[in-house]
Amino acid sequence: MSGPRQGRFVTFEGGEGAGKSTLLATLAERAREGGGGSAGGSPLISVLTARARAADDQVVTCREPGGTWLGERLREALLGAPSTEPPDARAELLVFAAARAQIVAEVIRPALDRGALVLCDRYADSTVAYQHYGRGIEREAVDAANAVATGGLMPDLTVLLDLPPFEGLRRVGLVTDYLEREPLDFHRRVRAGYLAEAEAGGRWLVLDATQPPDTLAEAAWVSVERLFQA
Amino acid sequence: MSGPRQGRFVTFEGGEGAGKSTLLATLAERAREGGGGSAGGSPLISVLTARARAADDQVVTCREPGGTWLGERLREALLGAPSTEPPDARAELLVFAAARAQIVAEVIRPALDRGALVLCDRYADSTVAYQHYGRGIEREAVDAANAVATGGLMPDLTVLLDLPPFEGLRRVGLVTDYLEREPLDFHRRVRAGYLAEAEAGGRWLVLDATQPPDTLAEAAWVSVERLFQA
Repeated sequence: MSGPRQGRFVTFEGGEGAGKSTLLATLAERAREGGGGSAGGSPLISVLTARARAADDQVVTCREPGGTWLGERLREALLGAPSTEPPDARAELLVFAAARAQIVAEVIRPALDRGALVLCDRYADSTVAYQHYGRGIEREAVDAANAVATGGLMPDLTVLLDLPPFEGLRRVGLVTDYLEREPLDFHRRVRAGYLAEAEAGGRWLVLDATQPPDTLAEAAWVSVERLFQA
Repeated sequence: MSGPRQGRFVTFEGGEGAGKSTLLATLAERAREGGGGSAGGSPLISVLTARARAADDQVVTCREPGGTWLGERLREALLGAPSTEPPDARAELLVFAAARAQIVAEVIRPALDRGALVLCDRYADSTVAYQHYGRGIEREAVDAANAVATGGLMPDLTVLLDLPPFEGLRRVGLVTDYLEREPLDFHRRVRAGYLAEAEAGGRWLVLDATQPPDTLAEAAWVSVERLFQA
């Protein structure tokens, strides 16, 4: 299923307001600039520079469920649902899976094939956390939908920004869509689910998201660089 | 997964221009009116009348991938794709599956649970024909997506309107979306796939769609009535 992969694939997971997009942007900037203060010797940058032809090709960022023409429209279809007609849980699962299939085919695989560093805001683990642990859809169905969507492509590193749901929702401030309207208990199950998954270790890096942004970026950066030293 | 089912579920399959929606509308009208010319003694109608409180509740029609708020938006998202950016085959598979999950939860299951006759234009077999036989996605992925979407709910009767693709596309006339722009060979594979599936017999009724509409309606009606005699 997966062809030759020379790039590295990093995903960012966690609840609403955990700071995923901020961390992702900081790491992308740092990677593009050459590894921060003590640059030059960064193995990540020398590897990326050797592989990619243009700076834009070296570091690719994306977000789910948007990030593609189809994904944006699917996102609108889901989040625009009237509160009186929330989507069926299995339909929601499959829409997220569809958006994922599109971004894998259109963005992630081509970038990895040319040796890039891909940083993605949410991926298959979000579906496990929200649809299985949060909504209670059986694990088998969630895994099946993910398998169809990803064709087996999994991240090399997954950064989980862990935060108490109450704090995350406070940070988000305005409740703007049906997901954010879910009761606190739903978000607690999602958080517990993420932590249960991360216990497997391996590709998971769990960070306490109440730490300052610079501390989080530094910790995540060390793990990203390590991917290129292997 | 499936609760007590007292209704009957009939699906209509076939290529573009085969006459599915016309046949469905004719059968729905006949069922609502009481079984046609020699009415009164129709077992279908007496069963339906005994079960349903209102006429509208007795016979429910639907079409995929539309038919629900979410489904219509998903349909727009897919069919509105620019021809330069057609959806990824697996994304398309999952969008159709999502629309199906919604219509099953919102329309089909509730109608069957109250004892109605449900007539649906396209269902899981369309995905097998178009995405597996047509696009070449492996059968395992197509079956997995269908299983998540339907929760195992399959039709009691599937009417396949079989037609040479060239004739079907001629009937459609105007090519309006990316599916109709597919080469003739794609539609030939879809037709062959439908026929291969129907060889299993059982719930399948294969009709030669070049026959006059009245002949088709009469043949299908006999099979629909038989569902209520068992």
